[in-house]
Amino acid sequence: MSKETVKNLEALRAQMRQLRVDAVIIPGTDPHQSEYVSDHWKLRNWVSGFTGSNGTAVVTLDQAGLWTDSRYFLQAAAELEGSGFDMHKEDVPGEATIEEWLVENLHDGAVLAVDGYLFSIIKAAQLEELCGRNGLRFASDFNIADRVWTEDRPARPTGKIYIHDEKYAGESASSKIERILAEVENAGAESIFIPSLDEIAWTLNLRGDDVAFTPVFVSYLYLSADERVLFIDDVKVDADVRAYLKSIGVKVRAYDEVKDYLGSISTHETIMLDPAKVSDTLSRALDCMKVYATSPVAMLKAVKNDVQLEGTRRAMERDGAALVRLFMWLEQNAGTGKYTELDVWDKGIEFRSQSELYRGDSFGMIAGYKEHGAIVHYSASKESASTLAADGLLLIDSGAQYLDGTTDITRTLTLGNPTADEIHDYTLVLKGHLALARAQFPVGTRGSQLDALARIYLWEEGMSYLHGTGHGVGHFLAVHEGPQNIRLNENPTTLQPGMITSDEPGVYKAGKYGIRIENLVLTVPGEHSEEFGDFYRFEVLTLFPYDRSLIDCSMLTAQEIAQINNYHKQVYDRLSPYLNDTEKQWLAEKTHQL
Amino acid sequence: MSKETVKNLEALRAQMRQLRVDAVIIPGTDPHQSEYVSDHWKLRNWVSGFTGSNGTAVVTLDQAGLWTDSRYFLQAAAELEGSGFDMHKEDVPGEATIEEWLVENLHDGAVLAVDGYLFSIIKAAQLEELCGRNGLRFASDFNIADRVWTEDRPARPTGKIYIHDEKYAGESASSKIERILAEVENAGAESIFIPSLDEIAWTLNLRGDDVAFTPVFVSYLYLSADERVLFIDDVKVDADVRAYLKSIGVKVRAYDEVKDYLGSISTHETIMLDPAKVSDTLSRALDCMKVYATSPVAMLKAVKNDVQLEGTRRAMERDGAALVRLFMWLEQNAGTGKYTELDVWDKGIEFRSQSELYRGDSFGMIAGYKEHGAIVHYSASKESASTLAADGLLLIDSGAQYLDGTTDITRTLTLGNPTADEIHDYTLVLKGHLALARAQFPVGTRGSQLDALARIYLWEEGMSYLHGTGHGVGHFLAVHEGPQNIRLNENPTTLQPGMITSDEPGVYKAGKYGIRIENLVLTVPGEHSEEFGDFYRFEVLTLFPYDRSLIDCSMLTAQEIAQINNYHKQVYDRLSPYLNDTEKQWLAEKTHQL
Repeated sequence: MSKETVKNLEALRAQMRQLRVDAVIIPGTDPHQSEYVSDHWKLRNWVSGFTGSNGTAVVTLDQAGLWTDSRYFLQAAAELEGSGFDMHKEDVPGEATIEEWLVENLHDGAVLAVDGYLFSIIKAAQLEELCGRNGLRFASDFNIADRVWTEDRPARPTGKIYIHDEKYAGESASSKIERILAEVENAGAESIFIPSLDEIAWTLNLRGDDVAFTPVFVSYLYLSADERVLFIDDVKVDADVRAYLKSIGVKVRAYDEVKDYLGSISTHETIMLDPAKVSDTLSRALDCMKVYATSPVAMLKAVKNDVQLEGTRRAMERDGAALVRLFMWLEQNAGTGKYTELDVWDKGIEFRSQSELYRGDSFGMIAGYKEHGAIVHYSASKESASTLAADGLLLIDSGAQYLDGTTDITRTLTLGNPTADEIHDYTLVLKGHLALARAQFPVGTRGSQLDALARIYLWEEGMSYLHGTGHGVGHFLAVHEGPQNIRLNENPTTLQPGMITSDEPGVYKAGKYGIRIENLVLTVPGEHSEEFGDFYRFEVLTLFPYDRSLIDCSMLTAQEIAQINNYHKQVYDRLSPYLNDTEKQWLAEKTHQL
Repeated sequence: MSKETVKNLEALRAQMRQLRVDAVIIPGTDPHQSEYVSDHWKLRNWVSGFTGSNGTAVVTLDQAGLWTDSRYFLQAAAELEGSGFDMHKEDVPGEATIEEWLVENLHDGAVLAVDGYLFSIIKAAQLEELCGRNGLRFASDFNIADRVWTEDRPARPTGKIYIHDEKYAGESASSKIERILAEVENAGAESIFIPSLDEIAWTLNLRGDDVAFTPVFVSYLYLSADERVLFIDDVKVDADVRAYLKSIGVKVRAYDEVKDYLGSISTHETIMLDPAKVSDTLSRALDCMKVYATSPVAMLKAVKNDVQLEGTRRAMERDGAALVRLFMWLEQNAGTGKYTELDVWDKGIEFRSQSELYRGDSFGMIAGYKEHGAIVHYSASKESASTLAADGLLLIDSGAQYLDGTTDITRTLTLGNPTADEIHDYTLVLKGHLALARAQFPVGTRGSQLDALARIYLWEEGMSYLHGTGHGVGHFLAVHEGPQNIRLNENPTTLQPGMITSDEPGVYKAGKYGIRIENLVLTVPGEHSEEFGDFYRFEVLTLFPYDRSLIDCSMLTAQEIAQINNYHKQVYDRLSPYLNDTEKQWLAEKTHQL
């Protein structure tokens, strides 16, 4: 890679010199502030050679740096070799942040320029404020990719979009648009501009294939009482979808027209913008009144309706049955020495794709054997993949996109001869996982209040995990979605009935093994009392047994044992109709009462 | 009361008419934003007749309202009868807030005026913003008390202040001032203005008697590298204190000179102000540059030094011994029918005052018998006090100010024949109290993350409590202090070694009984591991047994039973040196292993 990216870096600097720009910041996102982006927007990879999912490049005329987090320190060091980029560590005490580095390295009056399409309103404002405080000048109109990535740039994706049937979505697009506009009106606005791809897909009951693992499509959406406009490349919309859009009053305009369209909005109109999602460039194009607020679509989307929930329950049954086949295959084959972590991924897809509603995985499977399990976001490659054997722990974090629901499950299993430490640590993680799952909590509770319930057993023994305990999950959409989560960090969103969130504590022993146990849980109404008000609790959606041979019952309370037994009984009852006799027998053993 | 307050209300309205003011807001605080105020500043009581600790009066030319919280609904209704004030309920869905009520009831262009000494910079700015948005005019220069409370207003307190010996404080005032000024410099300022009474007392190692239960004195403090000025009524400073202040370079000026002094500060100086603590009026008096930041004194004060901690441990021993005598007295006398809740308070003071370091209670004792225990901030009066008998629960929340430390403990005990419900609920509360006390947690943990550990056992059965789980506690200072706490609400302050916080879950059954169990706990270093970093945990400071006859051991884990037994052993070992043989025998029974 390095030769080519060095040339790219030089081309960028030539443009910077010409435009009298002293520094640029290139994030790894797209104009929709997406977490995963299509190749068309991988400018940061193009200039630096770094391919990880989180990384920000900073280039000055004589220096270049790439900031990433601990997951990618090894990978970045390798990929950046000979690129002219230094690696900088994020979230490591004593290491300079991008902001600190810029202030340190730029001279008074220097110009920092960015592509305002790739920065949200908030992020651009923060940079502008930083520059103002430190005698730097800020410009957000440097469309770097258009100026320097002229050859070999992949086109925007051209795949066709398709209708997501209301029998899965449970609500018509018209009804959703009505509810969105009611929220917009409540906030004192008349219209809303939506740049987030999963919000657009949810609103319109449309899906696409532009991004790996998430069935979204590149577009923008504008909604008001008078006008509904989808900005999308024409080639993606076939006659059926065009007719459907017309039937719900949505006009189609070219993706590239969005900026001019926004610029033409009446100065008297008040438009609602989510400052964390709308790009600086498109916000500046608007010459009307603005209401800044968290997108109402995120919350509407997070609260699933009964059709989505029933679909999800069925998807969980099919997903669990596929995992029964995968885990049986593992039991029979792991000890042969013929298979690696990559085969687990292949087999997972094979078994899951037997469901006709399967539309691909919801993320790249993590199959981490022994010490690979301790690498939280481990992704096996041909070079790195370990060969499975008849001992050690295997951590499998996987999920699927079904038309009727999205799944995400982690199980850790022993391939044989579990050690006392493995059993001890597995049981601690399981205790936290169970404590969160059985929690009942008052209406108004935030995820950050519950997070410690899953951690306290590990903390008590001086262990912890650095990732969140739970993330929101979409419905045939992104496997990571907001606004709710269950994390150490404060998040003002309260848990609401209909929200699906993961419950996934873990513990990672570097060089040895990783353990994570993950179910998806649904917030549902709990007890009501005159004196103490209303409570919520969780319904566990995911259906697959824990590994009985890794559980130390002497560490469990009677309540915990009953909780496992009840869950295992439900797993058997609900999965067995999908299984043949051999499979049923296997599952009966795995779900036998403790 | 009502006749007199009606006259006072009329006098206020006469002034409002004369000054063309349409509405005023009168909070229950003083110019130092104190929680408890001396009589001189009880203007809200004077105009409305309401005496509760939380209440805000709003007066227009033809209406008057008093906003208070659920603790005071009954009391306010009684005290406001015939006063011309309507009671408004705070924090009740559907009830208008003061802001909503003002917007609803004031005409366009109306003038809202307040005494800017009684509103912090933040609160005044919020009101100004509210007025701006709603076509109202705002004035913060209406010194209501000076204009209308001309007769019978109590003078400012005149009690002498005294030196708090370094053998208790553990650090000289000079050293504290140096540390404060280092923080001020770090924040880019040269000086700091401190209006908070407990911050001034802590900084200067001085104490006073101006406010009930908290040994503070009315004053302001200005600190810079060149000048240190204490603004205080001259009569309060005797020759010794004057010499001491001189020795630490602190000049004394009249309390009433503070505004002029601030006004004379050089326009080139940058002063640090805590916008939640400095009053709007004094902030406006400044014509220099300002840095707004949370007061560094609050954090420095919260982290106790080793001398303070050793003092607190000794204070806890004497306090526990006094409680042994109080509880023995209760056992012998509660059943006689001769004593009420008020006698418990008297007896508590009697036994505590046997310590020569005792300087009064740290708050008004809550002794709530049977249904009174369910009133969270119950304060017995001659009219309300229940007579004790040989059954039912008695909740006693009390604490003392000793020169070497401040205590705050709640115990709930049965006076006889505990019911199954009482035992069940007591054990649930105890489980939460123990879970929080034994928590180990990573460096960087906030109280809001731990709060649910104390609540989850109650939540699981559809019960809860509406107060916080823990508040910070001062050292021979306020029994409630920040910045840390353990609450449902987010608070970005992390727990630090040296901080003292309460651990006090409870449950309240209206009309039946209240249960609360409270110890003070100290954050101390816990485990360290290369892999998982540093942890903190709690050392329990408070020393007094739980009520064994209210504990259902079948609801406890082996770990919880061991925790109680270990604690009880420590209670016996540390209190017995202070006790005679009869008392020791009593305590031995109460701390007998479960």
